[in-house]
Amino acid sequence: MTHILEADISVELTKNSKLKDIDFNNLPFGKVFSDHMLLCQYKDGAWNAPKVVPYQPITLDPSAKIFHYGQSIFEGMKAYKDKDSNVFLFRPLENWKRFNISSKRLAIPEIPEAYFMEGLKALLKADKDWIPTAPGSALYIRPFVFASGNGFHASPSDEYLFIIATAPSGAYFSGKVTVAIEEKYSRSANGGVGYAKAGGNYAGQFYPTQLAIEKGYNQVVWTDDTSHEYIEEAGAMNIFVRINDTLITAPTSDRILDGITRKSLIEIAKAEGIEVDVRKLKVSELVEAAKNGSLKEMFGSGTAAVISPISGFGYQGTDYELPELETSYAKILKTRITDIQYNRTEDPFGWRVKIQ
Amino acid sequence: MTHILEADISVELTKNSKLKDIDFNNLPFGKVFSDHMLLCQYKDGAWNAPKVVPYQPITLDPSAKIFHYGQSIFEGMKAYKDKDSNVFLFRPLENWKRFNISSKRLAIPEIPEAYFMEGLKALLKADKDWIPTAPGSALYIRPFVFASGNGFHASPSDEYLFIIATAPSGAYFSGKVTVAIEEKYSRSANGGVGYAKAGGNYAGQFYPTQLAIEKGYNQVVWTDDTSHEYIEEAGAMNIFVRINDTLITAPTSDRILDGITRKSLIEIAKAEGIEVDVRKLKVSELVEAAKNGSLKEMFGSGTAAVISPISGFGYQGTDYELPELETSYAKILKTRITDIQYNRTEDPFGWRVKIQ
Ligand SMILES: Cc1ncc(COP(=O)(O)O)c(C=O)c1O
Ligand SMILES: Cc1ncc(COP(=O)(O)O)c(C=O)c1O
Repeated sequence: MTHILEADISVELTKNSKLKDIDFNNLPFGKVFSDHMLLCQYKDGAWNAPKVVPYQPITLDPSAKIFHYGQSIFEGMKAYKDKDSNVFLFRPLENWKRFNISSKRLAIPEIPEAYFMEGLKALLKADKDWIPTAPGSALYIRPFVFASGNGFHASPSDEYLFIIATAPSGAYFSGKVTVAIEEKYSRSANGGVGYAKAGGNYAGQFYPTQLAIEKGYNQVVWTDDTSHEYIEEAGAMNIFVRINDTLITAPTSDRILDGITRKSLIEIAKAEGIEVDVRKLKVSELVEAAKNGSLKEMFGSGTAAVISPISGFGYQGTDYELPELETSYAKILKTRITDIQYNRTEDPFGWRVKIQ
Repeated sequence: MTHILEADISVELTKNSKLKDIDFNNLPFGKVFSDHMLLCQYKDGAWNAPKVVPYQPITLDPSAKIFHYGQSIFEGMKAYKDKDSNVFLFRPLENWKRFNISSKRLAIPEIPEAYFMEGLKALLKADKDWIPTAPGSALYIRPFVFASGNGFHASPSDEYLFIIATAPSGAYFSGKVTVAIEEKYSRSANGGVGYAKAGGNYAGQFYPTQLAIEKGYNQVVWTDDTSHEYIEEAGAMNIFVRINDTLITAPTSDRILDGITRKSLIEIAKAEGIEVDVRKLKVSELVEAAKNGSLKEMFGSGTAAVISPISGFGYQGTDYELPELETSYAKILKTRITDIQYNRTEDPFGWRVKIQ
């Protein structure tokens, strides 16, 4: 059975809600977890029906393949509440599709749409009160699946757990973001798993990112692994560059995550009459633009980080600062996309999905 | 404290040994686990003292970073028993060193030598009777470390578990091995984590390997991600190619695991008077050699697979068969290395370490 209705999903509510202990006006990012989670097991060749259960620890054998072979993928979404306490998701089917694209590349069985979507709705019904309303906050949603089967043979697991956990969250970055353009390390290979939200892609970034942080930057902007000549994306954000009045972002490839914020911003920008150029961008062109003053803006885009303006970048030992603009594209686009997400304007694109 | 003596390691023995249930003459690879494991936690900036405990499940929060960001690395070793029940390891310090090389790249705190080595000795003392003696079998040893700290922020964990688990094991491959030379997918990037035994490197191989298996091959031989023109290594083995009487293997790089079996075989081969050429090998050269008959052998090398002769390879839709030799290099080298490992001959290299 791969179809299920929200009403048919079994729900076991917690007897010990933590809700009253939470300071919803001072939320960190992804550190406070809601009362419930969606749980779904793959066994004997099939996904069992998902169920809503109290948020609880997971017990695994030490030989569980997740500990050894990194067989896991995830998604990042948000639930938004408007002033009337209606609850919205933003293009959730895109997340479900990408979840399965990632799964396929990692040899993980795909999740039926209804298990993902109806399961998520049932979970958000149980935890509706966990969706924060303070400005800039949202309920961060983390669907993930990992290999729970046992054994040291380096081959795909025969069992998996699919879980959706949620965390009421504030901003991902605090303050202005500076980036280091990477010259040595790489995030992903041609023919690799860079386009998937695979766990291993993130662990591989930690060390180079630490090195950048030690030098005073917040994030690394990855370049292609063959030549390090082209801008790709950041750790958890796609990258936009404004040169003169044109917004440039790298085309997606098997090395780059096809960000939902990225593709939404491309459409919004076009609708706003901003010229958008999806093309490969050389680091040398970026540096040149910084030097001759045509580089106006850089920002990252992602579900967690929304739009994060970049105030400067480092490359080959030199730091380049970006101007502070009164009316930046980043500001215009952030207002437009969050207005849609939080139901503050109409949604000409049909992206907002009301779920409660 | 980072020094510890084997005698000081706390040992909690199981009250329910599974030893009598195991058929030691029919061992699979890595599916049967010994009675005990070594357990060591990193918390508040330091590794706690390792202890031997009954093999037992691990309980983690759903937000534990291992589930989301693949922050884990591992090693593969074996304990060998000779006919007098003495117990040996093979170059164990090389595994400890590589464990820390891998850890560093994955932003995981390094393990002190004594925790690894003395911990392993204490574990093998507790589980001595689990070391099998049937021909071709050994106790497979799996040291691993993973991110056990919580939170959805994509950054290194603040807590880790280091565990050594063991599994009495038979052969990794059964029968002859055929390989597909990869033309599209890749295992690792320049500047990536390919030289580390990082969990994510293995999950990324599962799908392309499944595709190869569907076409009738057992394994993929990876090529470089930039051009797919050069032979790199296999999923869990380095690759040796014999053209005429010369043994060729790719140089290590940041994309290739620096295999301990590989470097030992290079030394053994040289001592046997076999010409060894450590150099980049083009797929086109391999195909040419197969066509003109100068390709005599191919084999994989690794702790799990020991030496696995390859009987044929597929490339661009054509299958190439390798000849069956009476006295192959693979056979000579396998005899030499396993004789050293199982204490059947002297060890001129000083690689064998008697631990009991
Ligand atoms: C590597 C990477 N790039 C880009 C993004 C942005 O994608 P999205 O806009 O779909 O959140 C993310 C995740 O959020 C990511 O992990
Ligand atoms: C990718 C890879 N290559 C090669 C090897 C062989 O290394 P070693 O001989 O040290 O076991 C392994 C692991 O065993 C491996 O995982």
